[in-house]
Amino acid sequence: MTDALKIGIAGLGTVGAALFQILKSRHNLLADICGREIVITAVCARDRSRDRGLNLDGVVWFDDPVAMAREADIDVFVELIGGEGDPALASATAALTAGRHFVTANKAMLAQHGVQLAKLAEAHGVLLNFEAAVAGGIPVIKAMRESLTGNAVTRIYGIMNGTCNYILTRMEHENMGFAECLAEAQRLGYAEADPAFDIDGNDTAHKLSILTSLAFGTEIAADEVYIEGITNISIDDIHAADELGYRIKLLGVSQRTATGIEQRVHPTMVPKGSMIAQVEGVTNAVTIEADILGELMLSGPGAGGAATASAVLGDIADIAKSRPGHQHAPALGRPADKLEPYVKAQIQSHEGGYFISLKVDDRTGVFASIATLMASNEISLESIVQRARPAGADAGPQTVILVTHATTESKVRAAVDAIKREGYLAGDPQVIRIERTRDN
Amino acid sequence: MTDALKIGIAGLGTVGAALFQILKSRHNLLADICGREIVITAVCARDRSRDRGLNLDGVVWFDDPVAMAREADIDVFVELIGGEGDPALASATAALTAGRHFVTANKAMLAQHGVQLAKLAEAHGVLLNFEAAVAGGIPVIKAMRESLTGNAVTRIYGIMNGTCNYILTRMEHENMGFAECLAEAQRLGYAEADPAFDIDGNDTAHKLSILTSLAFGTEIAADEVYIEGITNISIDDIHAADELGYRIKLLGVSQRTATGIEQRVHPTMVPKGSMIAQVEGVTNAVTIEADILGELMLSGPGAGGAATASAVLGDIADIAKSRPGHQHAPALGRPADKLEPYVKAQIQSHEGGYFISLKVDDRTGVFASIATLMASNEISLESIVQRARPAGADAGPQTVILVTHATTESKVRAAVDAIKREGYLAGDPQVIRIERTRDN
Repeated sequence: MTDALKIGIAGLGTVGAALFQILKSRHNLLADICGREIVITAVCARDRSRDRGLNLDGVVWFDDPVAMAREADIDVFVELIGGEGDPALASATAALTAGRHFVTANKAMLAQHGVQLAKLAEAHGVLLNFEAAVAGGIPVIKAMRESLTGNAVTRIYGIMNGTCNYILTRMEHENMGFAECLAEAQRLGYAEADPAFDIDGNDTAHKLSILTSLAFGTEIAADEVYIEGITNISIDDIHAADELGYRIKLLGVSQRTATGIEQRVHPTMVPKGSMIAQVEGVTNAVTIEADILGELMLSGPGAGGAATASAVLGDIADIAKSRPGHQHAPALGRPADKLEPYVKAQIQSHEGGYFISLKVDDRTGVFASIATLMASNEISLESIVQRARPAGADAGPQTVILVTHATTESKVRAAVDAIKREGYLAGDPQVIRIERTRDN
Repeated sequence: MTDALKIGIAGLGTVGAALFQILKSRHNLLADICGREIVITAVCARDRSRDRGLNLDGVVWFDDPVAMAREADIDVFVELIGGEGDPALASATAALTAGRHFVTANKAMLAQHGVQLAKLAEAHGVLLNFEAAVAGGIPVIKAMRESLTGNAVTRIYGIMNGTCNYILTRMEHENMGFAECLAEAQRLGYAEADPAFDIDGNDTAHKLSILTSLAFGTEIAADEVYIEGITNISIDDIHAADELGYRIKLLGVSQRTATGIEQRVHPTMVPKGSMIAQVEGVTNAVTIEADILGELMLSGPGAGGAATASAVLGDIADIAKSRPGHQHAPALGRPADKLEPYVKAQIQSHEGGYFISLKVDDRTGVFASIATLMASNEISLESIVQRARPAGADAGPQTVILVTHATTESKVRAAVDAIKREGYLAGDPQVIRIERTRDN
């Protein structure tokens, strides 16, 4: 049997502790499968005194992850520290430079420094694996990096943030408002005390930028993602979507267009009959459209200690099954120096259908004015609905809902701006993009 | 750059021809990704004179695949001949024995001889890859063999035959009978002229037996799968399912139970709100329930030349990225000599809910008799419905539909036999198992 594979784990939070336990309790099974033992020789965490219920006998403790990366007797550095900068980044750089394989769940770091780390891994002939960084336990990185080799991807879209999907499905099922659902999600541990990073769409954007690189063979461009969060989605929007045959999901979408690659994260109307519309609660899902394979969808747990640990374990096992010095598995699907520059398609040139909800004063001619302004901006309408007022309310603003045929973002913005100037709007317009799926 | 990887393709039907074209047209992209060229040096097919539109310049033609396996200048033998026996099996044996990697889409051969071929591959230090053999373009083999390493699988279920799923979804959507939908599927090329292998469930059973081995680390036991096809499913069953909140799918299910591992293929009622119920037409889907990861679902094209070629290409690319002489990737997830014997759970001990539809003569006391016989067999009922006769039909048999709480197959069979003996049945009873899913 080949020599044991020696692992160092940096970060002993939920994921790190779960991984530690699994590597210990399934030691023999893993050795059978991988043809060699996997042993933890080093760990690193901030607080040495905390009791994590882990048996650390025979494991060297490091207070500093960079020191562990440089000095520990390890083949693989498992980074579960998080955060885009140091100490995670310094650890990654040190570990790869020292010729150690690097396994990480750190989407923020990869979104910002993934190409640089991939180059470092390739220069030192080691593996950089990060299945857990996108969509938790779902093997979407492996599918894109390996299974889809040779395919040209045309579009990738997914639900990649469990917090947002939990809130949106609860709003729909329980007829609850956004704030109430967010509070519930926080109580249940599905949302952070400071939920901004999730609900503003930034977490999804990080993950999407990594998938975009794998999908299109381009450099990672996390700062070029168009982002809208879900904080403006009201229960009224969800009801209106339902009536029109849609559900609202926070999607990350990446797509090749004539002018470049679109990367966008925003609340999206998806047809109720599509698979992605069925994805509920904290579950994540990613759909990949590729020219040879067709359409592939993967769904599963996007977060949680065990699911994330499972993805990290798969990455470690891939390394254990490989043999040192004979790697060719470029981290981003192709060698980092063959990645093309990212060419951005501006959101203004986005083409698609739109849902537009307008609160208007109840005046003669408003309906006609709206219809005229849409037409003068070359927007053709699939439907226009003036919603009945709630019973008992026989005065005050009314809601007009428009669903457009495929048009462009710039035309929609021009039309909405023109409508605003007419002075009959009784509140901010709501504009939600509609995403067509192939499966409905 | 490492030496080129030399490929021989045996079988130039739809998949083989598609693969040939892709390897040629994406040669440079594949070389970039894999760090070496992939070149086709040999092909083999029955009829040399047929024009397949392929440029065979520089490719050695073999009439005999076994000769190609032995003599051709190839690193990888791609078997697209099909059939469980020779010449596919003889080719596999010859290729592996000659130290060539072996890529196949041949589920029938793997279902019967997979363990033996895995042992041969391991003995000769080469890879046996077969992503295309189960669920076409869906990377379920890779997910189970690699991503889920270390997980204990508890259940796996899926729609693995596009022909059956096409027929069942058409019956539901178009309110058409089975025979009519089958004829349509044949016209559209979704069903073979002789459709028995698909509609009787044998194709699904082959695929399930391979997944069972990967899921539970047991030897492949294709002959131990309990099989029922879809030929007895009527439009009435589909309507009744719909009213009760279910859809009927031909599922393959494999599950660890107290007495062994259940492998069964049969028409199954799945809750309408579950993801698997949304899988329509020729699309396939597989759900894996695992103890660390949780629940993972993959769906996509289960057949078709391009999708199958994409899966074969992924297998070839994995070999191209690896480096000769340094493989450790057991074909069945763990070394073949570590696979446990398959211990069969008998279908009689299957536990679950049942849908039972009985055509009964319209006599006093029938309803009471049925209820009594269910109770005396310890079967508790979730619902019992006597369906109204169609308008205008005020005589003739009536339909009684029962939905049971969880019980066992043996109790249901005993109860149905007892009911038969009462003499009031006006036709064969219909019994359909209900599968609970976690996601609804």
